[in-house]
Amino acid sequence: MTAALKTTVKAILFDTFGSVVDWRSSLIADLTAFGAARSIAADWTALVDAWRANYAPSMDRVRRGEQPWTKLDDLHRTTLEHLVVQFAIPGLSDADLDHINRFWHRLTPWPDAIPGLTRLKSRYTIAPLSNGNVALLLNMAKHAAIPWDMICAAELFHHYKPDPETYLGAAALLGLAPGEVMMAAAHNGDLRAAQACGLKTAFFPRLTEYGPHQSRDFAADAPFDIIASDINDLALRMGC
Amino acid sequence: MTAALKTTVKAILFDTFGSVVDWRSSLIADLTAFGAARSIAADWTALVDAWRANYAPSMDRVRRGEQPWTKLDDLHRTTLEHLVVQFAIPGLSDADLDHINRFWHRLTPWPDAIPGLTRLKSRYTIAPLSNGNVALLLNMAKHAAIPWDMICAAELFHHYKPDPETYLGAAALLGLAPGEVMMAAAHNGDLRAAQACGLKTAFFPRLTEYGPHQSRDFAADAPFDIIASDINDLALRMGC
Repeated sequence: MTAALKTTVKAILFDTFGSVVDWRSSLIADLTAFGAARSIAADWTALVDAWRANYAPSMDRVRRGEQPWTKLDDLHRTTLEHLVVQFAIPGLSDADLDHINRFWHRLTPWPDAIPGLTRLKSRYTIAPLSNGNVALLLNMAKHAAIPWDMICAAELFHHYKPDPETYLGAAALLGLAPGEVMMAAAHNGDLRAAQACGLKTAFFPRLTEYGPHQSRDFAADAPFDIIASDINDLALRMGC
Repeated sequence: MTAALKTTVKAILFDTFGSVVDWRSSLIADLTAFGAARSIAADWTALVDAWRANYAPSMDRVRRGEQPWTKLDDLHRTTLEHLVVQFAIPGLSDADLDHINRFWHRLTPWPDAIPGLTRLKSRYTIAPLSNGNVALLLNMAKHAAIPWDMICAAELFHHYKPDPETYLGAAALLGLAPGEVMMAAAHNGDLRAAQACGLKTAFFPRLTEYGPHQSRDFAADAPFDIIASDINDLALRMGC
């Protein structure tokens, strides 16, 4: 089974937030440092968790057609404006909010991500397939030296995952059949949607993505093609 | 002037066919080897020149709306079908034509391209902005180890250069103002169009792109921001 996968699969697409980068620890660290530098006391950890809790609902409004296509940077920015009011954080200018919003462009990869991706790149085309916009993913890659071959983003298709247009659109851009493309993620829902589109799938868990609030995705819940412990292990299983 | 450019410019987009890769020598070599292996005698050099001569007219039909959006692989394939009849080349199957068409996916970079791009990548985001489709550019990059950060292609905008949608679309995807993006090419027409959209521009000549048929682009014919001798020299002038 795995032997066939190694020859069939030509490209591996990665979910990014949570799967490749540790958004929660990165944002908490950056916001805490920002607050200290500006002498603003706030529960930055709670703000980060609330920011991410608004992620899916904000995309769902786009997905349901209640608002026209809006890239993730702009969804993040709108949510942040509400949260600074809700958390009663004083004295932030528009430039401050832009600065904080761009913390999403400099998230830190999990320790196995860069070595694992570097190994996979020697044999496969590797790209994110993320709901982040192109500039966000590109800046993140430049900041953390993530060696992507290409940036695939929801923005290119004007659809957010798990809409099938994202998985099928990425395969078409790569000039590949869906079955020649593998989706790799720490999220069962993403992989089930990719599998329904005919993509190959690889799961690896990120047990601390949500810190103490982790409530799901502790293990694969469907028959994915590969179940690995992390991206290094995925590279090993894919012959790299 | 150049000092200001180094801080203003955040990304450099490269024309690819002729500017980064030597399409003519590569295709002649691959077709000659193919003909020898299959014992087919033909004027492969003339076929390559005719193939490229059809490049602009085939895109113009799309640009004028005479045919719907068609990616370059498919334009190349249609032209090739006509040429094998015109050159009376016998015995080629559909699979042979697909194989020959993909010679465009494995063009060889000019000697300065990889070292120059590698230097530029340390400071700037680098990407092609090419009329080639994403899969063509990605396969070319994997084959020749071109270290792009992202693949920008006409296909993403459903417009061919020199339509402004390509230059402005690429800047928007990168999250940059047009003036923060530099277009680099060996072709005056491409750079004049980019300049008209507000992009910075860099010219470097490729005097043998068309072999003995070179008839233009021997030198810059407009006030571009940088005039370099090749991509290594561009890297030097841009502080890398």
